[in-house]
Parts: sequence; structure tokens; C-alpha cells
Amino acid sequence: MAGSTFGSNITVTTWGESHGKAIGAVIDGIPAGMKLDEQDIQIYLDRRKPGQSKFTTARNEADEVKILSGVFEGVTTGTPISIMVENTDQHSKDYGNIATSFRPGHADYGYIEKYGLRDYRGGGRSSGRETIGRVAAGAICAKLLSELGITVCAYTKSIGDIKIYDFDLSERDNNALCMPDPAAAKKATEYLEACMLNNDSAGGVIECLITGVPAGVGDPVFDKLDANLSKALVSIGSVKGVEIGDGFAVSKTVGSINNDKFRMVDGKVTKATNHSGGILGGISDGDDIIVRCAIKPTPSISQSQPTVNENHENIDIEIHGRHDPVIVPRAVVVVEAMCAITICDALFSHMTDRLDYIKEFYKN
Amino acid sequence: MAGSTFGSNITVTTWGESHGKAIGAVIDGIPAGMKLDEQDIQIYLDRRKPGQSKFTTARNEADEVKILSGVFEGVTTGTPISIMVENTDQHSKDYGNIATSFRPGHADYGYIEKYGLRDYRGGGRSSGRETIGRVAAGAICAKLLSELGITVCAYTKSIGDIKIYDFDLSERDNNALCMPDPAAAKKATEYLEACMLNNDSAGGVIECLITGVPAGVGDPVFDKLDANLSKALVSIGSVKGVEIGDGFAVSKTVGSINNDKFRMVDGKVTKATNHSGGILGGISDGDDIIVRCAIKPTPSISQSQPTVNENHENIDIEIHGRHDPVIVPRAVVVVEAMCAITICDALFSHMTDRLDYIKEFYKN
Amino acid sequence: MAGSTFGSNITVTTWGESHGKAIGAVIDGIPAGMKLDEQDIQIYLDRRKPGQSKFTTARNEADEVKILSGVFEGVTTGTPISIMVENTDQHSKDYGNIATSFRPGHADYGYIEKYGLRDYRGGGRSSGRETIGRVAAGAICAKLLSELGITVCAYTKSIGDIKIYDFDLSERDNNALCMPDPAAAKKATEYLEACMLNNDSAGGVIECLITGVPAGVGDPVFDKLDANLSKALVSIGSVKGVEIGDGFAVSKTVGSINNDKFRMVDGKVTKATNHSGGILGGISDGDDIIVRCAIKPTPSISQSQPTVNENHENIDIEIHGRHDPVIVPRAVVVVEAMCAITICDALFSHMTDRLDYIKEFYKN
Amino acid sequence: MAGSTFGSNITVTTWGESHGKAIGAVIDGIPAGMKLDEQDIQIYLDRRKPGQSKFTTARNEADEVKILSGVFEGVTTGTPISIMVENTDQHSKDYGNIATSFRPGHADYGYIEKYGLRDYRGGGRSSGRETIGRVAAGAICAKLLSELGITVCAYTKSIGDIKIYDFDLSERDNNALCMPDPAAAKKATEYLEACMLNNDSAGGVIECLITGVPAGVGDPVFDKLDANLSKALVSIGSVKGVEIGDGFAVSKTVGSINNDKFRMVDGKVTKATNHSGGILGGISDGDDIIVRCAIKPTPSISQSQPTVNENHENIDIEIHGRHDPVIVPRAVVVVEAMCAITICDALFSHMTDRLDYIKEFYKN
Repeated sequence: MAGSTFGSNITVTTWGESHGKAIGAVIDGIPAGMKLDEQDIQIYLDRRKPGQSKFTTARNEADEVKILSGVFEGVTTGTPISIMVENTDQHSKDYGNIATSFRPGHADYGYIEKYGLRDYRGGGRSSGRETIGRVAAGAICAKLLSELGITVCAYTKSIGDIKIYDFDLSERDNNALCMPDPAAAKKATEYLEACMLNNDSAGGVIECLITGVPAGVGDPVFDKLDANLSKALVSIGSVKGVEIGDGFAVSKTVGSINNDKFRMVDGKVTKATNHSGGILGGISDGDDIIVRCAIKPTPSISQSQPTVNENHENIDIEIHGRHDPVIVPRAVVVVEAMCAITICDALFSHMTDRLDYIKEFYKN
Repeated sequence: MAGSTFGSNITVTTWGESHGKAIGAVIDGIPAGMKLDEQDIQIYLDRRKPGQSKFTTARNEADEVKILSGVFEGVTTGTPISIMVENTDQHSKDYGNIATSFRPGHADYGYIEKYGLRDYRGGGRSSGRETIGRVAAGAICAKLLSELGITVCAYTKSIGDIKIYDFDLSERDNNALCMPDPAAAKKATEYLEACMLNNDSAGGVIECLITGVPAGVGDPVFDKLDANLSKALVSIGSVKGVEIGDGFAVSKTVGSINNDKFRMVDGKVTKATNHSGGILGGISDGDDIIVRCAIKPTPSISQSQPTVNENHENIDIEIHGRHDPVIVPRAVVVVEAMCAITICDALFSHMTDRLDYIKEFYKN
Repeated sequence: MAGSTFGSNITVTTWGESHGKAIGAVIDGIPAGMKLDEQDIQIYLDRRKPGQSKFTTARNEADEVKILSGVFEGVTTGTPISIMVENTDQHSKDYGNIATSFRPGHADYGYIEKYGLRDYRGGGRSSGRETIGRVAAGAICAKLLSELGITVCAYTKSIGDIKIYDFDLSERDNNALCMPDPAAAKKATEYLEACMLNNDSAGGVIECLITGVPAGVGDPVFDKLDANLSKALVSIGSVKGVEIGDGFAVSKTVGSINNDKFRMVDGKVTKATNHSGGILGGISDGDDIIVRCAIKPTPSISQSQPTVNENHENIDIEIHGRHDPVIVPRAVVVVEAMCAITICDALFSHMTDRLDYIKEFYKN
Repeated sequence: MAGSTFGSNITVTTWGESHGKAIGAVIDGIPAGMKLDEQDIQIYLDRRKPGQSKFTTARNEADEVKILSGVFEGVTTGTPISIMVENTDQHSKDYGNIATSFRPGHADYGYIEKYGLRDYRGGGRSSGRETIGRVAAGAICAKLLSELGITVCAYTKSIGDIKIYDFDLSERDNNALCMPDPAAAKKATEYLEACMLNNDSAGGVIECLITGVPAGVGDPVFDKLDANLSKALVSIGSVKGVEIGDGFAVSKTVGSINNDKFRMVDGKVTKATNHSGGILGGISDGDDIIVRCAIKPTPSISQSQPTVNENHENIDIEIHGRHDPVIVPRAVVVVEAMCAITICDALFSHMTDRLDYIKEFYKN
């Protein structure tokens, strides 16, 4: 199946394996006339780069992006933008029984059943490195959104049991966990250190706040804005759940509370509350869009684990090397990227929703 | 935007408004040679039909399905199957200020901002009646899956705070709430009766259990099996969250627990636990697939609610008529339908995953 | 395979068999706010209706269209427009050996090899009646285009060897052959009468002239405007060739002649000639768009023909009943319809080609 | 618009400009388990490489392909195959007024109207170099087809007025014009030499013969096999017409001749003639598939030509440098490539056409 392309008006096609020659993406449908250089993308890639704290893998990758097409004299041309990051740290090594075993919590077994073979080096295509292409595409879309006054900002909502409490977005980049609450970040750090001592790993929740999307964006049936955001987020490895607005909490409340009342404020239609998370019936309601996703604990842990190998024998496996004890902080920018792509795509669709819009465009 | 089509190999295109002449769907890509008649679909539609208990709207609709194409002499022909349900209860009535006001919790405001106008009768396209097309398509896909030994079964997991406890699937159809636990159903009934006395509404959680999907189905990147299931579920009106397997609980556990150990049992690769919900890295792992979604309380309540009208004036609105105090029970079959469509689509994709498969098919 | 949907921004999904209960289409992506009623569509359907001259089948079908959704108070709502035509002339009859034989020139054999079975009544899905859905969709798109000052007009270019010579579009609807040249129509009539005497059939060429499309529409690579028009036309049954502008004649000319010179005329960029047919490099060049397609002789003829049946026996077949000795005149409106859909779709895409366009749209 | 992706089950996304850093493609959906190395692709690329005869541009490009992903230990893994060719001959040069003028016969004017700006170096994205990605993808698909006993072979049918007469496929690669008839090749050579003396260019026709496709492949409505082949071919730059089987000649014949009679031969259903070109009603009929396309004369000629520049002034333009006086020979492999991709895609779709096929696949 050809399942490496995301989007309708803007399409993002990613390619590449963890230990192949390179990783990349083709981003098609970006409009002409936007300033873009490699630094715009590099800033985003650096946020997911390994080796930035004790909680991220030590793999030594510069992750330097090259733009290979679609930009001329510093400006997008409307043609596909091809970006590539070379894998520099791909020295051959002995993968031992990892090459032929199904690591618990990983996709190894599914791959073998699906394809009959697999590139076992570093997880191959199922490696977190696949997200490089997503992040590059997201950086481009986020720049486009910023031209329209729209911001997309994700952060760590919780790690294990530790939730952010005093929300201060300006603190997000001041700790290795991307938590917009220094006190929570401190507690989460201790929790993670304990996990690491146990050769264990942790999970968490990432939230994304999208501001500036006007009301009327998204489709009322299958391509609901929240349906597409959900697909976008669950397509990120290790995500096991998604919420929009109040999410699962809506199941326990009542309509009289959950219904956000509309009110005129300063001549604008506003909502007194935002239980909806900015989306009603699949269409943006003009309020902040809020989505969340749950990230499972890193499956690679250095404890010995019972499992099965390709010969269908019960064995024990030990996964050596340094692995992120939690992938939440590095996934924050991936969440941002996927949301930015999805929002851009929906904004483009909206431009043909009314005959008047089309007549205005073609009036000359 | 053309957002009324779902799926790749099998496509489902729904059409119709709550109070238009009819509601329907075109289901394309169903293989030739499957027995199919209207009764196969009617059984599913009857599960979502109004007027079946005190918890569902009294709207009097027979919801009788007609198959208009794609079936010849009782067997599918491989061409698109067009199904239609006529809206019989569409007598004109005075919608009062509902016609020009933004009902809280509804998509009315988004529709106006999106399209500049709307069919306000019964919610138009955003009505729950849109799901008739989904359910009909799901009935066909579920029949196809049953030919492959795959079952898709949804049920009410919780209503308000009341969760099922003693799971007994055979009890699901013995209560109006589709709860596979009579004791929980009884408590939930009391809870809902209290809601109704308060002119209020309730939400809940629906779970879907899919058995018999072999390992290897789903794609490793954007078209992950769980990503597509998530889009499928969140595209159902009122869904505000989705979980696969342990869902949000994974954020609080550790890798050594969350990793399902593979073990050989009776010569088969099995997992000792199923925290993954049957999907790892976007690919089925051979275990039961388990997904859940959160349904918000019915936004139509008979309490007076403050809101805004199309003239951008603050007003109070009262939504008269009988409305489901909870839509969870009627949404159960919709969840089943969307899962069945998604699983079928993924199974078809898998058939071209390996050169050997293709060579075997075309060997003659 | 789900191959009954055409288009990207506007999607047209057709359904229905020749002798099923009905034939129809779902047209999604039509913008809100356009006046539309059944008469707008009926005018187009009447142009392809059987029984209008001695050159068309006598099948007695009213082909009355119903709009089932997507229009409220006479105006499109932006939601899918479902249209349906009931098959009234579907009385059961004895199909004799047609039911089990492969008619020469028809798709019967391919259907059986593809699906293993087929609805043999009147050609089932491969009947010309399938084009009802296309024509209805095309009527809607043509109306939309007329709001933008764009016209789409097809006509018979030739029948057999007889080509139009003195082009006078106002004459097109004055003869049963849709030829914009009365003299040619007269000769073609005589040619067809001779064919009919021989129990034989004829082919022809249809040309479509599209005016008012601004330069800059269409994509430079796979979704070239002419590539999509070609797919649109060859997807019509019996079309065996397509040309854009000078078409196959370009193979015999030289660059210095074939290159249309650009010249400023009245302050506008114009071309001195239009060998390109209004499309260069897949993008409209502002000139009239001209495409042509070749239609094969009706395969159903009343002569006895040798063929093979489903038991793989050599037999002779006689196809009784009245058949169009030439389908060209009835296909003219189908060509128009497919062009209108394709042009609409491309116009919508163009609206997001530049950042400035998007910023202008979302400036508030 | 995102128009750089082709295909459904197999998708090909091309990227790159003539004088950008590189040109490439991502091919997704290729099944796992096929041997593939760079040489398999290089053989095809070498057939379109410049500088191979006096009739092709002298641009000095090695066009060495790199496979960046999707292949592990010499075998495809089922994940996207990224291929890249670096542009080595991209030394900066003075483009003079070409940078700001609309070359006759080129897409320059359309690009400016579409995007507001363009990469004028060597035609940017509209350069023939864009076909590198198509040819690489086609090479992979052709290899896959060869595993199924299917061959795809294109050749020059005519140049100017000179058609092949004595068809001998073994001669195709013995002349610079890819003509399977040495006598015709000799005459065409003389014709082209005369064109070159006049600083002019020529066009021609390419035919593609596809053998071994079983009956039953392709879809009866919009995704007709010939509709998709037509889109594939017209999406190649400079193609202005397409024919299937007898093509435009069908317009002048009669049904009794054009209908290919089915006959049993050696226990197989065969056709006595092949006017249909192997496709009836959009579905393969088991016979050889034959398609043709018309290629216009190279628009770049060294004669002075009147045109218009970006300031909307009438000017004369001279296009210096060496250009192919005819692009037909180099386009032959591009035609083969596009046909191979289209056939593969259709073969994959057919695998889910019948319930029996699906049950057989999933029977375990």
C-alpha cells in the first residue's frame, strides 16, 4: 500500500529508513511567493534532534536539512519542495538477535507479517527518524500559517502522573521536557530519573494550542477538522489516544455545562467557555483549537524481556544502547508539525466553499 | 470542499439532509460475488432507528432502505451500491428562532461562517441522520468481514460516571443502552432519568472490539490502521476523543509493563497482554483490536440557553421537541460501521504488500 | 476497485445500471450560494435523452431528474448534491443468448473476467445510461462556469468521412446530428441512412470549445489541464482517441509554425495562432481551449456476428432491438459535461497557487 | 495545487527543477520482496540521457541515479523508494532576456500567470528533466511487470511524415531515432537534418505495445484503463494527442468492421482482430494493448521569434544553445515508463475485484 502521503491540497510524502542513506520528504501544494530557506526548517528540526539532554538518545546526528527543489532565489515557486537529511551516524554494527526478534512494543512482528522481510537497522521505516520529514513539512506550513496570523504551539501536558499546573508558555523552552511549568518539569525530571534507574521508560501527554483560525474551516462529514487532526496525531508513532477540547471528560458531564454559550463580545461572536476545543460539528468555531494526544512509554528498554524470534522460538531479548527514556519532549514538535499541516490543508479547502468567494477571485 | 467520501479501496460517499427528500450513500469497491439484500442492511439501520426507547427521539421514521444499484439477482456485481432511505417525517413546521440562531453545542455558527447559509431544518447535513449512509455501508462491510472470519462489535462502555463492570456481551442487546452488563445498565438508566428530569443530557463512551484480523494489516506511516480508525471515529458527530488499547492510560505507565510480551502458544505468536489494543506501529499484531471513543452530551436540551442569532444579537433559545437525552446507544452501531469500513479497506490494501502475493495471483 | 468517482475539489460519483431501479450521481464540492433547480439539469439531460430522432434508440425513458439533497430554498448549500433518474423502461424481457455471450465491441468479456459475473440487462453498468450522472454533474458545473464568464460548448466535428466545413455554431441545434454546419449535416444524414440500410453503424469526432478560462489554470506535471481533460474524455464509453489543439497534426509540422507567437493586442497578452489549443505545458494560456475525441461506431448492430459465449463456445449472435446507428450526437453533451467538471476542478485548485491569494482571502 | 503525484495503489511523486540541486521521485506502494538495484533504473535513465546523438542536446549530464530508501540488502522492503539524480551541469549562466520573456510554445506565460514568478533556468519544473523521476519509477514498475510476464515496449512510430513501414522491433535500438524500421529511420534522419539546417524542429508519434495483460484489468467508469493511460501520456510534456487501438480512424469505419470478433483458439478466448487496442469498455480484453501519442516539435528553436516579455512588450527572442531538434526518441522511454506505472496500478486494483479472490487470500 502507498501510505506515505498525507493531505489533500497540501501533500506531504515522507521517505527513508533510520539507517538508510538519508531521510526526507516532498511537500507539494505550498503556494508560490513565500520566503523560505533552510534555516526556517532547521529551527524545527533542531527541536527534535537527538542528544540534547540526558533524556534523549545520544545518537550523534547533525540532522542538517537541504532544500533540493521548489525554492528559487529564496522564495517558494509553487512546485514541490524536496527536503533531505543525510543519515551520518549509520556505521554498520552488529544488531545481534534484534535483527531476527520481535521487540516487545515495537512494530517488528507486524512488519514481518506484512512484508515478509524488514530493514531491522534502528527500526527501519518505523524509527522515530521518519518524523524528520513531517517536521520539515510542518515548519513550512507553520511559516505559512504565521503569514495568516495563526499560531500552532504544542507542549508537554504531563509525564507519567505529573501534570502541568501553572501554565506559563514562556517556560516551555526552558526545560528539557518542554513543560510550560517549571515546577512540574522538576517533578517530572525526578520521575524520569527514577525510571532510568529501573532501566524503564515513561509516557506522557502532549497538548497543542492553535490560535487564530477563523470560524468556518473544516468539513461537516468525513473530513471534519477534528477527524483530520486525529488522524494526523495518531499517525505519529507511539500515540494511543487523542482528545479535542474536553476530550474523554465530556462523557461524564451534562449538556447544560458542556454546551459553550455563544455571546456577543466587542461586536464579535464568542463563546463563554471552550469545552468544544474550538471545533463544533467538524468546523472551527473561531475559538482556540485545543487537541491532545497520549504517548506511550518508549518500548526500547534495557531490561531483559521475554519475546519471540523469527523462527518462532521463545527467547529473552536485551536492547542495548542508549534510548530515550521518554519520547514526549521530542514528539512535541512533531505534534506541532502535524497540526500545522492539517490546518493549512483545511484553510485551503475553505477558499472554495462559497460561490461568492470564487466569483470574487475570478472577477477580472 | 468535497469531504463526503471516506476510504481508499472501498469508498463511501454519503449525502442528504435531515429534512430533505432522502438520505443515502454510494458504496464503491465492494467486490463482486457477495450475497446481499436489503434485509442485511435493514438489520443494522434498525439498531440506530429513532423511537425505540424512552431515551431516543420520538421522530417517526421507518428508515426503510432501498438498494438502487450494484446488486443483481441477489449478488453484488462489483459496481457501486447506491442505497437510499426516504425521509417520511419531513412535514413542514415552524422552526421559530432556531432557524436563525446558533444553538449552543451545535455546528450552526460554523456552517454560517463556512457557507454563508444553511439548511436549518433538523440540523440539515449535520443531523445524526447523516449516519444512515455510514451504517448502511458498514452493514455491507461487516458482512464482507464475516466471510473472512472477522467480527466487529461495539457496545456502550460507560454513560456518565457509570462504567460496565461485569462484561457479558450477550447482554448488550437486552437493554436500551447497549451495555453488556445489566447492573450497569440499570444504574445508567437511573442516571439518565435524573438527567431528563433536569431537562439535561448525558454523554458516554463506546468501545469496539474487532476480532480475527490477522497480523500485518495497516500501513507504517500516515495510513496507520489506528490513524484511519481514529479519523473514522472522530468523523462521527459528537465524538471528542479516541483511544486505542490502553489509550490515555499509557501516559501513566512504564515501558516494562506496557510492552506486551510475545510468546509462542500452541505454535502461534501471541501476546501475553494486549495493552497495544491489537495495533503496534500502525500495523495489526494479530490480537483483538480495541478502540474507544468519547461521546459528548446531546447538545439539544430543553432548558433555556443564552446564545447569539444571525443578526449577532444576544438572545435566549429554547429547543423544543423530544431529543435523545443521550446519543450513545444509537451511536454504537455507527461506531461498528465506521470500524468495519476501515478494516475492510486496510485488508484490501494488504493484498498487494508483497511481490509473492502478486505473483501468486497472476500466476496463470 | 472503487473507480466511480472523478475529480479532486469537485467530486462526481456515479452509480446505476441500465436496467436497475435508477441511475444517479453524487456531486460534492459545489460551493454554497448558487441558484439551482431541477430544470437547470433537465435541459442537459434532455440533450442526451433517447428517442429524439431516427438516429437514436427508441427506448422510452422520460429521464426526469430529481435533486435529493444539497439544495435548500433553490440555492446550493455546499453539501453533496444527490441526483437521481428512475429507470421507467425496465420491463423484464428475454435476453436470450445475449445474457451469456460476449457481444463483439462490448465490454462483456472483460466484465466476466474481471468480476466473474455481470448484470447483462442492457449492458448493465457499461450502458450509455451511466452518462446520466455525468451529464447532471456537468450541467451543475456548467452553470457555475457561466457565473465566471466561461462557456463550454461541444459539437459534432465529423461523422464517418464527413467533416464540418462552414462552422456556424448557431446551427448546431438545428439538426439531429449536432453539426454546426447544415450542409455537412445533410451529407452525414445520408451516410447514416446508408449505414442503417446495411444494418451497420458509424463513428465520428466531437470537438469541445471552452472560452473564458484565464491563463494560469492547470498544473505543470501530472495534473496538467490537458491530461485531466484527456482522462475525462477517454473515460466516456466508445472514445478511442483525444486531441488538444492541433492534436496529431503536430507530429507532421515544424516548430517555427507550431509555436504560437505571443503578441500584445489591446494591452493584453494574446497568441497570433492557437495551435496549442489553449494549453501550454499543462497550463491554460488564456486562449480558447479546444479538445476533440474520436467515437467508435456503435458496437450493437443487427447483423449476425460470430463470437464466443460464457461456455467458451464459438457461436453467432444477433443483437435485436433498436440501437443508435451512431452515438456521436448523444455523446456531445457528455463531452461538454466532462469538460465542464474538469475545468471547474482546475479553477478551484488555482485559487491556492499563490501566497498572496491566500493572504488576501484571510486578511480579516 | 499539489499535482506532482500520480497513481492510486502505486504513487509516484516527482520533484525538481532543471537547474536545481537535484531531480528525483518517491515511488510508494512497490511490494516487498523484489530484487532492485541502481543498475535496474540506470538502464532506463540512460535511454533518455542527453548527448547520445546529434539529435539530442549536448548538455553534459551523467544522470547517475541513487536509491536513497526502500531497498535493503538488494531487495525492496515495501516502503517508499526515494531516487535522486544530482544536476551536475548547473553552472550559472546569463539567461539574458529568456529570464523575462515568454518563449513561444513553452509554458513560461502560464507559469507567470499561475504562480506570479518562476524559476526560468532551463525551464525550471517544466523542463524535460522532470521526466527523470517518471523514468526511474517506470523502470521499477517495468521490472515488477516482467515478473508477471508482462512487457511494455515503446518505439517511434513516425517523425514528421515518415512512418515506420516494415515493423521489426529488434531494430529499434540500432538507430538514434528508436524506429523499429531501418529504412524509415534513414529517411527520418534526412528529414531531421534538413530541419536542423533550417534552425527548425520536428515532431512525431510514439507507439507503445503492452503484452501479457490478462483480460479483466481496468475499471468500467472513470478509471477506465485507457482513461488512465491517456492521462499518463498527456501528462508528458509536448504530447498533444492520444489514441488507443485504431484511435481516430474509428471515426471513419463502420461497426461491422470495427467490432473485433471473439473466437476460441486453442481453448482460449481470442479476438480475430485488434481494432480495440486491447481495451473494451475500459477493461483489458486479453489482447495486446496498443496506445499512441503525438509529440509536438521542440518549441526551442534558434530562429528569431516574435514574442512578449514580462513587461508586456512585444519583442523578438532568440533561444541560443543546443536543443534537441526532435524530442521523440528521448520521449520513447518516458512513454514506456508512464504505461508501466499505469498498468501496475491497475493490476493491483484488480486483485480485490471479487469476493472469492479476497477469501482465497485470507483463507488461513
